[in-house]
Amino acid sequence: MSSEFEFLDRIRKKFSLGKTGDDCAVLPKDSKTDMVITADMLVEDIDFRLDWGRTELLGHKALAVSLSDIAAMGATPTWAMLSLAVPERLWDSKLLDSFYESWHELARVHGVELVGGDISKTDGKLVIDSIAAGEVPRGKAILRSTASTGDPIFVTGPLGGAAGGLKSLEDEMFQCFFPPFGTLRLTLKQLQPTPRVEAGKLLQSQGLATSMIDISDGLSSDLAHICRASGTGAVLHSEKIPIYEFLDEITHDPGELLDLALNGGEDFELLFTCDRKKISAAKKAGFCHIGEITANEGIVELIVDGETRVLTPAGYSHF
Amino acid sequence: MSSEFEFLDRIRKKFSLGKTGDDCAVLPKDSKTDMVITADMLVEDIDFRLDWGRTELLGHKALAVSLSDIAAMGATPTWAMLSLAVPERLWDSKLLDSFYESWHELARVHGVELVGGDISKTDGKLVIDSIAAGEVPRGKAILRSTASTGDPIFVTGPLGGAAGGLKSLEDEMFQCFFPPFGTLRLTLKQLQPTPRVEAGKLLQSQGLATSMIDISDGLSSDLAHICRASGTGAVLHSEKIPIYEFLDEITHDPGELLDLALNGGEDFELLFTCDRKKISAAKKAGFCHIGEITANEGIVELIVDGETRVLTPAGYSHF
Repeated sequence: MSSEFEFLDRIRKKFSLGKTGDDCAVLPKDSKTDMVITADMLVEDIDFRLDWGRTELLGHKALAVSLSDIAAMGATPTWAMLSLAVPERLWDSKLLDSFYESWHELARVHGVELVGGDISKTDGKLVIDSIAAGEVPRGKAILRSTASTGDPIFVTGPLGGAAGGLKSLEDEMFQCFFPPFGTLRLTLKQLQPTPRVEAGKLLQSQGLATSMIDISDGLSSDLAHICRASGTGAVLHSEKIPIYEFLDEITHDPGELLDLALNGGEDFELLFTCDRKKISAAKKAGFCHIGEITANEGIVELIVDGETRVLTPAGYSHF
Repeated sequence: MSSEFEFLDRIRKKFSLGKTGDDCAVLPKDSKTDMVITADMLVEDIDFRLDWGRTELLGHKALAVSLSDIAAMGATPTWAMLSLAVPERLWDSKLLDSFYESWHELARVHGVELVGGDISKTDGKLVIDSIAAGEVPRGKAILRSTASTGDPIFVTGPLGGAAGGLKSLEDEMFQCFFPPFGTLRLTLKQLQPTPRVEAGKLLQSQGLATSMIDISDGLSSDLAHICRASGTGAVLHSEKIPIYEFLDEITHDPGELLDLALNGGEDFELLFTCDRKKISAAKKAGFCHIGEITANEGIVELIVDGETRVLTPAGYSHF
C-alpha cells in the first residue's frame, strides 16, 4: 500500500497539479495583467471537522485558504467559484446558510465576487472545492523559485497559533468547559484564519519579495518548498522566529513552542525572501527577519543557542 | 426533510451558483475577449459508478461535461483544472492512471492545458471537480436568455443515446454477457460523451444561434431553461426529434423512444434557437430543426400525430 506521501507525489507528477510549483497557476490575461488561479479541495474529517463547533466559520476558512494562495503570488483577488458535494444529513441544517454568510463576509472585505460553481449531492462526506482568481501586473507574480543566496528570509506574522488551536480543539476538555480567552484566540487562528492579502500586495508593489509562499504546511515544510524550487538552502535563527502569543495557554516549554512555530500548519502567514537592498523597508512594515538563504542546496539549518542543526521538514503534509 | 429539488433551489439562490443563469460564467478578459468558466462536481455513486466497468473513460467524461458547457457558450476551450478527493482504496488502483490518460487524450483533441487543481484524501466517495475555461469574442457568448418568439429550435444531433446507455449499464444482464455492438455504442454514449465544441464555435462564429444550452438534463428540461431565461414558450414537433439509432437495441416502442429522447439526460448535444434568416445555413450544417419558440411564456408544447400536449420538464434534475 502506498503511503500518503508516495501517493501524493505520484499523482501530483502524473496530473501536473504542482506544475507551476507555485501557490497559483499564472495565466496571461491582457498585455498588462496576469491572472492567477488556485483550487483547494477541503474534505470533511480530513481538512475540517463538523463536531468542532463554530461550523459557521467554515465558509470563511474555505475562502481564506484560497485567498492566501492569491496573496502568496502578490496578487489582488478578484473572483471565486465554489463547488460543493453535500450529504443529505446537512440539507436541512443551518450549516449551509452560515457557510454562505461567512464566505460572503470575507469576500466582501476583499471585493471578491462569486461567479459560479456547482453543487452535487453525495452519500459520502461534505466536500468543498474553493476556487479563487486574482490579478497581478504582467510578469510580476512572485514565485517560489526565485530566491537567491544571501536573501534575508521573513515571515509576515507570528506562527504556531493555528496548530495550537488544533490541539485545543482536539482536547476533549475544551469541548466540556467554556474556554479561557487565550484558548479561544488559538482556536480562532485555526477556524478563522486571516489571509495576508494586503501584505502580499504590499510586498509585490514595493518589490520587496524575491520569492514567496504562504505557510499552509508549516514553516519547515514551506521553506523547504522555496529552497527546492530555487535550488538553494536556508538558515533560520530560532530566537528570531515569532511565536503566537496565546500559545502559552497550552505550553510554556520553549522546545514545544518552537516545534509548533516550525512545524504547525495553517497559520497562513506569508514566508518570503527579501531583496537585500530593501531589508529595512521590510522590517519597517512590521515583518520579521528570521534567517537567510544559503547556497547549501536542499539543506535548511536551524541555529538554536549558537548550535546549528539540520531542520527536517515536519509540517503537515496534506494532499 | 427538503426534497432534492427544494434543497437545490434554496442553495442555488443562496450561493448565486446559477447567477449568470448560463452554462458558464462570463468574465471580461481583455478588450477583445471574454473568458467563460465552468465547474462540474462529479460524485461517485451519484454521477458515476465504478462498478460499471470502463472506469478508464472517467477522465474523458469529467472533462467532456465541462467542455460541453464551454461549447454551449459558443466559446473555444483553453485551459482546465482538476480537483480530486480520493479514497485510500483507490490509491494503488490503476483508476487514477487511466483517469489521467483519458482526461489528457480528450484535452489534446481540443488543445486544453491542465494548469492546476488540488488533490485531497477522503474517507468518503471519490469526488471530482472539473473546472474548464474558454474564450469567446467580447460580448459574443451565446446565452440562454436571448431566444425570441418565432426563432426555430435546433439540436446538433440525435438524442436519448446516453439515457439508453444508462439503462444498459444498470441492467444486470449487461454485466454478465458480452454486449452486442449496438448496446456497446449506447453505453459509450453514456460513458464517453462527445462535447460539441466545433458545433458551438461554428454556431457562434457564423451568428447562427440566438440562444443556446447543452443537453445535460434532457431536452424537455433544458428547453424549459431557455424558455424561463428568455421569457418565452416553445413548441416541439415530435416526428422531427432525432432519435439515437442504436436505441432500437433496447426498445422498438415509439412512445418509449420519444420519452428517452425528450427526457434522457447527458447526451451533451447542443440545443439552440436559430436566427430566422439563417435557418437554411443551420440545416445545411447538419443540425436538426425540431420546433419554434412561442410567446406562450413558460409553456413547452409537444405536437404528436397532430395533437398538441403540454410537455412537463422531466429530465434528470441533478444538483
